[in-house]
Amino acid sequence: MTLLILNGPNLNLLGRREPEVYGAQTYADLTRELTACAAELGVSVEFFQSNHEGALIDKLHKAAPRTGGVVFNPAAFTHYSYALRDAVKASGLPVVEVHISNIAGREAFRHESVIAPACAGQISGLGFDGYKLAMRFLRDRYA
Amino acid sequence: MTLLILNGPNLNLLGRREPEVYGAQTYADLTRELTACAAELGVSVEFFQSNHEGALIDKLHKAAPRTGGVVFNPAAFTHYSYALRDAVKASGLPVVEVHISNIAGREAFRHESVIAPACAGQISGLGFDGYKLAMRFLRDRYA
Amino acid sequence: MTLLILNGPNLNLLGRREPEVYGAQTYADLTRELTACAAELGVSVEFFQSNHEGALIDKLHKAAPRTGGVVFNPAAFTHYSYALRDAVKASGLPVVEVHISNIAGREAFRHESVIAPACAGQISGLGFDGYKLAMRFLRDRYA
Amino acid sequence: MTLLILNGPNLNLLGRREPEVYGAQTYADLTRELTACAAELGVSVEFFQSNHEGALIDKLHKAAPRTGGVVFNPAAFTHYSYALRDAVKASGLPVVEVHISNIAGREAFRHESVIAPACAGQISGLGFDGYKLAMRFLRDRYA
Amino acid sequence: MTLLILNGPNLNLLGRREPEVYGAQTYADLTRELTACAAELGVSVEFFQSNHEGALIDKLHKAAPRTGGVVFNPAAFTHYSYALRDAVKASGLPVVEVHISNIAGREAFRHESVIAPACAGQISGLGFDGYKLAMRFLRDRYA
Amino acid sequence: MTLLILNGPNLNLLGRREPEVYGAQTYADLTRELTACAAELGVSVEFFQSNHEGALIDKLHKAAPRTGGVVFNPAAFTHYSYALRDAVKASGLPVVEVHISNIAGREAFRHESVIAPACAGQISGLGFDGYKLAMRFLRDRYA
Amino acid sequence: MTLLILNGPNLNLLGRREPEVYGAQTYADLTRELTACAAELGVSVEFFQSNHEGALIDKLHKAAPRTGGVVFNPAAFTHYSYALRDAVKASGLPVVEVHISNIAGREAFRHESVIAPACAGQISGLGFDGYKLAMRFLRDRYA
Amino acid sequence: MTLLILNGPNLNLLGRREPEVYGAQTYADLTRELTACAAELGVSVEFFQSNHEGALIDKLHKAAPRTGGVVFNPAAFTHYSYALRDAVKASGLPVVEVHISNIAGREAFRHESVIAPACAGQISGLGFDGYKLAMRFLRDRYA
Amino acid sequence: MTLLILNGPNLNLLGRREPEVYGAQTYADLTRELTACAAELGVSVEFFQSNHEGALIDKLHKAAPRTGGVVFNPAAFTHYSYALRDAVKASGLPVVEVHISNIAGREAFRHESVIAPACAGQISGLGFDGYKLAMRFLRDRYA
Amino acid sequence: MTLLILNGPNLNLLGRREPEVYGAQTYADLTRELTACAAELGVSVEFFQSNHEGALIDKLHKAAPRTGGVVFNPAAFTHYSYALRDAVKASGLPVVEVHISNIAGREAFRHESVIAPACAGQISGLGFDGYKLAMRFLRDRYA
Amino acid sequence: MTLLILNGPNLNLLGRREPEVYGAQTYADLTRELTACAAELGVSVEFFQSNHEGALIDKLHKAAPRTGGVVFNPAAFTHYSYALRDAVKASGLPVVEVHISNIAGREAFRHESVIAPACAGQISGLGFDGYKLAMRFLRDRYA
Amino acid sequence: MTLLILNGPNLNLLGRREPEVYGAQTYADLTRELTACAAELGVSVEFFQSNHEGALIDKLHKAAPRTGGVVFNPAAFTHYSYALRDAVKASGLPVVEVHISNIAGREAFRHESVIAPACAGQISGLGFDGYKLAMRFLRDRYA
Repeated sequence: MTLLILNGPNLNLLGRREPEVYGAQTYADLTRELTACAAELGVSVEFFQSNHEGALIDKLHKAAPRTGGVVFNPAAFTHYSYALRDAVKASGLPVVEVHISNIAGREAFRHESVIAPACAGQISGLGFDGYKLAMRFLRDRYA
Repeated sequence: MTLLILNGPNLNLLGRREPEVYGAQTYADLTRELTACAAELGVSVEFFQSNHEGALIDKLHKAAPRTGGVVFNPAAFTHYSYALRDAVKASGLPVVEVHISNIAGREAFRHESVIAPACAGQISGLGFDGYKLAMRFLRDRYA
Repeated sequence: MTLLILNGPNLNLLGRREPEVYGAQTYADLTRELTACAAELGVSVEFFQSNHEGALIDKLHKAAPRTGGVVFNPAAFTHYSYALRDAVKASGLPVVEVHISNIAGREAFRHESVIAPACAGQISGLGFDGYKLAMRFLRDRYA
Repeated sequence: MTLLILNGPNLNLLGRREPEVYGAQTYADLTRELTACAAELGVSVEFFQSNHEGALIDKLHKAAPRTGGVVFNPAAFTHYSYALRDAVKASGLPVVEVHISNIAGREAFRHESVIAPACAGQISGLGFDGYKLAMRFLRDRYA
Repeated sequence: MTLLILNGPNLNLLGRREPEVYGAQTYADLTRELTACAAELGVSVEFFQSNHEGALIDKLHKAAPRTGGVVFNPAAFTHYSYALRDAVKASGLPVVEVHISNIAGREAFRHESVIAPACAGQISGLGFDGYKLAMRFLRDRYA
Repeated sequence: MTLLILNGPNLNLLGRREPEVYGAQTYADLTRELTACAAELGVSVEFFQSNHEGALIDKLHKAAPRTGGVVFNPAAFTHYSYALRDAVKASGLPVVEVHISNIAGREAFRHESVIAPACAGQISGLGFDGYKLAMRFLRDRYA
Repeated sequence: MTLLILNGPNLNLLGRREPEVYGAQTYADLTRELTACAAELGVSVEFFQSNHEGALIDKLHKAAPRTGGVVFNPAAFTHYSYALRDAVKASGLPVVEVHISNIAGREAFRHESVIAPACAGQISGLGFDGYKLAMRFLRDRYA
Repeated sequence: MTLLILNGPNLNLLGRREPEVYGAQTYADLTRELTACAAELGVSVEFFQSNHEGALIDKLHKAAPRTGGVVFNPAAFTHYSYALRDAVKASGLPVVEVHISNIAGREAFRHESVIAPACAGQISGLGFDGYKLAMRFLRDRYA
Repeated sequence: MTLLILNGPNLNLLGRREPEVYGAQTYADLTRELTACAAELGVSVEFFQSNHEGALIDKLHKAAPRTGGVVFNPAAFTHYSYALRDAVKASGLPVVEVHISNIAGREAFRHESVIAPACAGQISGLGFDGYKLAMRFLRDRYA
Repeated sequence: MTLLILNGPNLNLLGRREPEVYGAQTYADLTRELTACAAELGVSVEFFQSNHEGALIDKLHKAAPRTGGVVFNPAAFTHYSYALRDAVKASGLPVVEVHISNIAGREAFRHESVIAPACAGQISGLGFDGYKLAMRFLRDRYA
Repeated sequence: MTLLILNGPNLNLLGRREPEVYGAQTYADLTRELTACAAELGVSVEFFQSNHEGALIDKLHKAAPRTGGVVFNPAAFTHYSYALRDAVKASGLPVVEVHISNIAGREAFRHESVIAPACAGQISGLGFDGYKLAMRFLRDRYA
Repeated sequence: MTLLILNGPNLNLLGRREPEVYGAQTYADLTRELTACAAELGVSVEFFQSNHEGALIDKLHKAAPRTGGVVFNPAAFTHYSYALRDAVKASGLPVVEVHISNIAGREAFRHESVIAPACAGQISGLGFDGYKLAMRFLRDRYA
């Protein structure tokens, strides 16, 4: 089973970007941790990060035939990209939306996700662990 | 007279994407039908589909000098892309906004178009026929 | 196939009423143009215009058994007549809502149609052509 | 490490209540599954379910000294119980809010949680797995 | 000191686009004027314009290490691109948001900037001079 | 004692109109059932149905002197006819607003009645029984 | 000069309808007082009252060629009849909107007039005198 | 057939509490009247009143197997207890929501019921008669 | 009888200020016209204009004992000065609010008057005539 | 004279709960201070604290006959418990609502009290002194 | 210790202004009562009342160095004077906002105070006693 | 050329007022810096600061004939003084609105300026430099 780990805008700057909110670990740390987690779970992972909404949509479209599930952190796109919502729905894949920080406790515009209604579910506020728990869920339910 | 048929995000997945809403016909079917329609109307057509907001804006800018009109289905961008609204206005071209489904009868966020105020008009809910009627209108009024 | 061309309040004053918005052609011009269009499309048309919401509802009820489709410009009723919405739904007829002007580009109250969710679709901003395109659609799909 | 599994109103009726939303498994099934999961994770669990907002607050207060973390499904209280929000904050415990169904895809009133801002994070839409993932998170981070 | 002059969607069409709002001068005129201004201020400038939100984010990320400040006209992205807001914050650079027209006096949706809270400040309505004043400010405060 | 049974727009189509919402019985069935009920209650009934708001107002005005109470289903007028609200108040008659379906469980616009504040009370969701219960109430309280 | 005195729904019940709000004088008293006032002002008056929105629209359309101005109390239609707003505009006549009671001091829904933007102006709260002042204004400005 | 008569907060104070709104009769009077009514209808009744939301939920849960229907006055809980809404739905019982006063004519917060969408219907404003009519309806439809 | 003619902020600039909205006549013209009108009506007038909210409140307080009525154009204070609303109410005087332009047809913030609920009534859109009609009304009703 | 000091949810945790907001003193400290204050004022006090909305309602009902006034800190219930609002009104007792912190300066949801309209008045932000001042007020006015 | 007793617009008319809301006592009565209270509390008082927002701001600025605390009734300014809010904050003085009437129980616009967030706290609904309790608080905490 | 530097409420307290927001420099520092700047720019300056809305309006009126432009910091009046908006418009002068702090990043009520639509433009967040840049702009464009 292959899981796609999809990360949206500005997540390439993890560690350097507002570390009091997102922690000091980098995007490289994230991929390293999730690769180890994948080995432990017995699945393979593919990573994709982009600051381009269109590139994320393209990736979701192309992933569909050969991917078993998606862990998706849409970052700021969470709050306005109806195009990504439609792309998740169109892909037919099980998608878990993940947020590193607890978005319910931040600015009001971060409280509503326009993408989550098209996902299986959402995990927020649990740091990098959120990705790992989502991977475990997808392995357990869809492998 | 050349008409640009511009399609926004996820429309490349027509037929595969929520067929109960968008029907079973594919994007290839759409281009085939509209090519036939163009022949009947005595106009030529150019097709462009992208999941990238920026690519759609670029296309509108470049189309301007050599295109007589645009049939534009902005898909999910309809509801938040003020950049596309400005691009339509900046192009100086007659643009008809088209939606395959009846957006007034779907989720609340699909009721308002931020792009339509910059267009000549809007057709929604008439399936692929909406594109053809828009082409006919542009031919009759602007050829 | 008979199509009902239903026009709502103040449309009897076409040509005299705000010509910068609705154009200089009169209601008589409209019926003449649509009669010619019907001949071209091989359908017959019946015209009905009223400033009375109740009369429009009555007409929709009575039309149901012998009419193949309705082209309906509800004018200002578009924005508050839930009774007409229910009448469209109750009639069981395919109805296309038409607006001469581009209502998305006018006052805010004209952006939302409470009737469109009960229709097959909506055409706005294309002048008298909007009626003709709607007639063509109904002939092609329901004749 | 002891984890408190706190369930709010109507969750005692699991399996009997809207099974198309919440599934066919009962509250007894839930406690059985989570007890097994706790064994696997090497933690002990305490279960508490109540339809009384006050009883849930009392429990959170009393749990504080001897509990390492809380998995909390506040059910309908999620959307209006500011008293539970204050109780979570007052407890000083790490709390993960869990929802069986994907609340972002249901009625509008279920989109906002007034309790989540006081929690570490939130998991929704992942069924009973959501509880287990939350338990794993609390064990990994706070044991 | 190098300043990045970042321009968002449709600004490549300056002069051609709604000249009654944005004036008759082109984007080439803008770069010529600002190059002259930079010489006068004793700083160097780099220009970047894109209709792609993702390209603007990428540019902000890459500019960070070697740029002393940014003059940013996000155009229509001003009103919905939370991704650009996060990118500005993540870049750690001093950014001044600039608008050629007085956005407070235009359509309601142009009154709120979702990017400005992450900037040092905002200048609007002062035409090309707005860019020059922002450059002067960045030179005086951050050189 | 004479009771006026007043029905608003589209209720003449009962049975034919959205039977999954309003049931399969017709307006004739309704009048037959209520006539029988009236006999049982020892009151006489007068029926009036119109799709014209003005006709309903006129009827309320004229009914006043010789009618003991009104059972009124304003249908879609419920949600916007302030004129009917004023007419109910002006009539000085005890009026019970009745809805066949449970309007609280339907579209948001059907949740608020602008007429109910001028009535004695409201019954909704109890089918034809709602009319009968209202008749019984008016007989018991005002005969 | 002929002035049309147009009165909307329920005003035929003046004197009988909520006298604590509208006073004890009847519609007949109103016509008598205004006839006397017209004589004093040297103009003729025509009276029209209807509870039918459509009838008021028809009257405005027909009045146009031979009437010098309109004193219009739209009563409850004030707050939702966009059709009357369009009719006032379409008539091309100077219209003064009049309300007997001070609508700004009553229920919230009575604070906004959707018709007034199409009128020359509005007088409210001055009782029958409001009509007389409007007549005087029309005579002075348009005779 | 047994009917549960469920009364929410402060209804134990009937007669003493704001008698100008709720009348001078007490809760004991209510139970006495409804007992007589039950005898007349040939059903048995069980009474339960509580000021505790949780106790009302518990009662609905326990009533389910042995009760044929519920007459429920949730009093102030009507307007915010989503937990009671879920409990009504979870019970699977036919429930009629009853209010003694005409809530549509009181403070704005009393206009919306969050519980009614889960009920069969609602009766308001008809005093104690509302309970009796609801009992009659449940006997006629569900006995 | 003495009438106080009270004018709020910027009305001293009449004639010079946005003449397309307020006309070309000056404040001096206004006082001259109203003085003539007062003579005709057999009343005396006192004029007071201030750009200071507090000065207008003081004037209302002091006017109370010796003034028979007030014609008040609060200009921009109309839309936010709750202090003037309280002052009108506290004065116990009959006050008619007057606006030269038709405020219902201008910017949205000018549609609501926070002062009018404390006045006898309001006249808007009738130019200087609005003042004269208000004076006539006060003379006729309160002299 | 006996005063009831009624405290709502989480106030039993005073001193332990967010001390930067509520201070370091405990609920025991509060009762000790208020007992001393009561002695000074010559009144007796009864204390009641509960996390159960229903228990607070029950207490208000029972207190009514033998209590001279109530000092009530409803804590988080302040913002949604319409049931407590009704209970305060039903009790017929003079009640002063008290808040330790300045709720106007905290989260938006804490700005509105749904209970205060049923109270004599409200004191907020004055710490424990708020209770004492309320006691003094009740003694001075109602003893 | 000197306390400043600051009163806003229309409070000079106490006793004469809406006595059913504010009582029959005058501003002179208020100063007399508070002077006596000050003597009892062992503090001195300075009184200042103005209908001018600017004068109240000036007074707060000047009071700062020599005043120990402020009892401030901003009257209608409470609801819109952000300038007074800033002035309170800028003064650095402890300020208690006081209202004679229970503003939570009056018109909706009186429910929100824009000044209170900058104050220590607020007392409302306790009549003249509110001032005295605020004086006592300031003496106890800041003397 | 003479420029008027107009400062609104509380700006006389600069340096003493919330220095973490507005900096440690005083109003005297501001006038000294701007006087130097004026010399450098070859213009003369006039300073005016007031806490009285009316005084600022008066100043704008009087400045009109002899002033070439205005740099205006309306402080808290920015958010509600429609009277100042009208005064700016009435003056016919080019006005640049300036804010020392970045108002887009502060409380929600500070995000909207009701005055800016009447100005040439706005500069915010650039400290004292904002005034200087505005002076430079006015000199360059209007001298």
